[in-house]
Amino acid sequence: MEFKAITIADFLQGTIEGDENVSVNNVSKIEDGKPGTLAFLANPKYEKYIYDTKASIVLVRNEFKPEKPVKCTLIRVEDPYQSMAALLDLYQQAKPQKFGVEQPAFVDSTATVGNNIYIGAFAYIGVNATVGDGSKIYPQAYIGNNVRIGVNTIIFSGAKIYDDCVIGDNCIIHAGAVIGADGFGFAPTPDGSYKKIAQVGNVIVEDDVEIGANTTIDCSTMGSTIIRKGAKLDNQIQIAHNCEVGENTVMAAMTGVAGSTKIGKNCIVAGHVGIAGHLNIGDRVTLGAMAGITNNVKDGKTLLGSPAMDHDRALKAFVVTRRLPELKTTVEQLQKELKALKAKLNEE
Amino acid sequence: MEFKAITIADFLQGTIEGDENVSVNNVSKIEDGKPGTLAFLANPKYEKYIYDTKASIVLVRNEFKPEKPVKCTLIRVEDPYQSMAALLDLYQQAKPQKFGVEQPAFVDSTATVGNNIYIGAFAYIGVNATVGDGSKIYPQAYIGNNVRIGVNTIIFSGAKIYDDCVIGDNCIIHAGAVIGADGFGFAPTPDGSYKKIAQVGNVIVEDDVEIGANTTIDCSTMGSTIIRKGAKLDNQIQIAHNCEVGENTVMAAMTGVAGSTKIGKNCIVAGHVGIAGHLNIGDRVTLGAMAGITNNVKDGKTLLGSPAMDHDRALKAFVVTRRLPELKTTVEQLQKELKALKAKLNEE
Amino acid sequence: MEFKAITIADFLQGTIEGDENVSVNNVSKIEDGKPGTLAFLANPKYEKYIYDTKASIVLVRNEFKPEKPVKCTLIRVEDPYQSMAALLDLYQQAKPQKFGVEQPAFVDSTATVGNNIYIGAFAYIGVNATVGDGSKIYPQAYIGNNVRIGVNTIIFSGAKIYDDCVIGDNCIIHAGAVIGADGFGFAPTPDGSYKKIAQVGNVIVEDDVEIGANTTIDCSTMGSTIIRKGAKLDNQIQIAHNCEVGENTVMAAMTGVAGSTKIGKNCIVAGHVGIAGHLNIGDRVTLGAMAGITNNVKDGKTLLGSPAMDHDRALKAFVVTRRLPELKTTVEQLQKELKALKAKLNEE
Repeated sequence: MEFKAITIADFLQGTIEGDENVSVNNVSKIEDGKPGTLAFLANPKYEKYIYDTKASIVLVRNEFKPEKPVKCTLIRVEDPYQSMAALLDLYQQAKPQKFGVEQPAFVDSTATVGNNIYIGAFAYIGVNATVGDGSKIYPQAYIGNNVRIGVNTIIFSGAKIYDDCVIGDNCIIHAGAVIGADGFGFAPTPDGSYKKIAQVGNVIVEDDVEIGANTTIDCSTMGSTIIRKGAKLDNQIQIAHNCEVGENTVMAAMTGVAGSTKIGKNCIVAGHVGIAGHLNIGDRVTLGAMAGITNNVKDGKTLLGSPAMDHDRALKAFVVTRRLPELKTTVEQLQKELKALKAKLNEE
Repeated sequence: MEFKAITIADFLQGTIEGDENVSVNNVSKIEDGKPGTLAFLANPKYEKYIYDTKASIVLVRNEFKPEKPVKCTLIRVEDPYQSMAALLDLYQQAKPQKFGVEQPAFVDSTATVGNNIYIGAFAYIGVNATVGDGSKIYPQAYIGNNVRIGVNTIIFSGAKIYDDCVIGDNCIIHAGAVIGADGFGFAPTPDGSYKKIAQVGNVIVEDDVEIGANTTIDCSTMGSTIIRKGAKLDNQIQIAHNCEVGENTVMAAMTGVAGSTKIGKNCIVAGHVGIAGHLNIGDRVTLGAMAGITNNVKDGKTLLGSPAMDHDRALKAFVVTRRLPELKTTVEQLQKELKALKAKLNEE
Repeated sequence: MEFKAITIADFLQGTIEGDENVSVNNVSKIEDGKPGTLAFLANPKYEKYIYDTKASIVLVRNEFKPEKPVKCTLIRVEDPYQSMAALLDLYQQAKPQKFGVEQPAFVDSTATVGNNIYIGAFAYIGVNATVGDGSKIYPQAYIGNNVRIGVNTIIFSGAKIYDDCVIGDNCIIHAGAVIGADGFGFAPTPDGSYKKIAQVGNVIVEDDVEIGANTTIDCSTMGSTIIRKGAKLDNQIQIAHNCEVGENTVMAAMTGVAGSTKIGKNCIVAGHVGIAGHLNIGDRVTLGAMAGITNNVKDGKTLLGSPAMDHDRALKAFVVTRRLPELKTTVEQLQKELKALKAKLNEE
């Protein structure tokens, strides 16, 4: 796939400065641009790279005024970042795609498979499972019995969906993710051993959800663990049984949510966060990296620290924590001085 | 599968109030009960839901006295939670089960496979491996050479058991778990690179152990990494080489144990805990969520915090940590006051 | 495989004390040695075990002087630990190895496969992929389109390599690792939902790298996420898009690195560490377990704590943190005493 500057400018409704016939077949970062690639300049910090970049074409803002001559072809657009994102989309969509059922795959005779699908070799589609139109089940993925997968959804290689789970439309589930494994529920017995509580519920993943590689979402004890529409979960996240993650909430890698906790919509949860069980996290909540959440959180709050506190308080507490050795010395000094003062007064 | 109230009451040895012929085909939580489902009421906090629940049958304590009329059929039992657990078990056991070897599977000609087993499509059973009676190896699971799997054990889809490992009876290993990968052992060399130390040991998982999705348990350098009878490990746990996890110890998700550490029996380890290497953690120890354990822990201790301290001390330290900005201000105020006082005394 | 003491001593260029014809077929730790096994004694703490060990042969230092009679055969060497490592290597290399393509495997007709390779059953090799001489692709591994795998590299069962990634020579990638899944990149839209930014880059893993079980390394948005030569990554590590991990850097389990961070060479990163995005971590940096890194780190620094601080400062701060309840009491006591003193002086 090669594209000329003129074709790209037309697509982006931008204006060209330089050779409109130069062509590119890949993208690059402006700081390590190579001939035959297209880069973009959005952040002014990177402007210095434009004068020497070897990229053949660079997207810049309409208002951009070079301080020195540039060698590459410029395409001026309103928002270079969004234009670049549009081109990346185009680039990815132009990649060759696979369709049909690659052999050997296992598709149970009772399963229903839509049109324009891809089912890769060694993929497994269980009893009564359904795969909607346009969906892609990559090699070695496992779709359990009665699982329903919507339209235009991608299940990458080796992702595992246990029986009875429901995955919506336009979802992406990355390699190694496990959806619907048993919740961690055990009842202690008098002899110190534990008896498993059967976990008979499922996981419902609504439309437009992306789930990262090796993330695990456990099925509910009964009823459903739910990931709401538009939520985005990064890699290696753990969502325990009976949880709910709200609409358009994004969670970064390695965050864990214990059982029966409900997280609201439009939240931003950073990486390595731990959220205890049976909590209610409101809407538009922001939780900083490595935060430990042990209480309910109200709408719109920003928390940090472990155990978590208000963001501003946490930042101040962090500063004092760093200076604790000095604070201790100060207090000891005060003790001495006060003692000396009292002794002196007693003498007098 | 539909069950009448009368059948369920007989099974549970409970007594019916209401329509004994109403039937259910699923379970639900009392707060979002649906017609045709059975719910339970154990925690008094949820009593308010019983008057409006749409569940057709609700299990309640023998002593339960409704304050208002209830529409559903009640089944009175001694312990609604345990009765529910028994029903969930029944419900799960009644699900259709697969038996036999689904094609294509790879079962090495030297492997030994028991009776009443299930081996799913694309599962791999290596040289000299054995799978005991009644065990189920789900699709795409990998059973390495010389692995021994006991009776009535379930290895879910895509779990990987490296060569020479031993899995006991009545175990459940969830999807994506990796048992027996190489321990992380390297010797530094003079040029700054690292030389791998071959890891020739194995992992022994004793009977009645459950291992969560995407959990990893490394093989020992030599000898065995051991998970003792009845231990329950949640998802995404990491057990490094040469460790031992004691009998009936439960560990929540995302906890990591570094090499050569021994954890005693009947411990409760919460989520996201980090335990350093070469430690000895006693029996009946409780470690709170996100705790960082850097020293040996005696039997029966409850620790919290990172680095961890006694539970009560940690709770107090957490309170002071939140108030550190104010404490610092107080100390500075004391400094000023003392200085002023000294100045005043010197003047006098 | 059985080896006589005399053969082992020859191989290690050591000297024998005791029965040179005793033979062993396995290794053991000295503290739980069994007849027919070989153990080693490097750490003097373990010397007490040598007098009673049931191991048939024990490697000891040339200078070792037993205080009591030993029953086992001794082989004296310069460095028992290195000698043991050499024997473990030998032991592992002597294990039977598989070669060829096990059926059924999926090898695309456009893929290129070298000599002396092993491709296990249910492994998938995509369009235009290449697998170098001597490499082993275990059962159920996934090698995407255009992936290049070097020579003598091992991809264990169920590891997944997305399209376009590059894996060097002499690498080991453990089961369940996911290389090249989409970076976590989304642009917020006015209605609160998120639009995916296509991630069209790849992952480059250079030579001599080991990647642990269930570790995830995301592809770059454009360009490459890079793991440099000789780096060793433990299990369940997360490397986000656009990162770089330097030469000979070792990282322990469950550590996460957010997007676009660059880590230098010869660093040691302990377990459960979190490193924020867009940072620059220098060379020879050491980060302690559970550290939270929020700022750039200079060459050679050792940091600890979350948020991280200099190692020595952190240790002192930890000590004060434990004693915070007492510090608070001391400050309150000072307040009281000072108030009393002032009152007394005012009275006088």
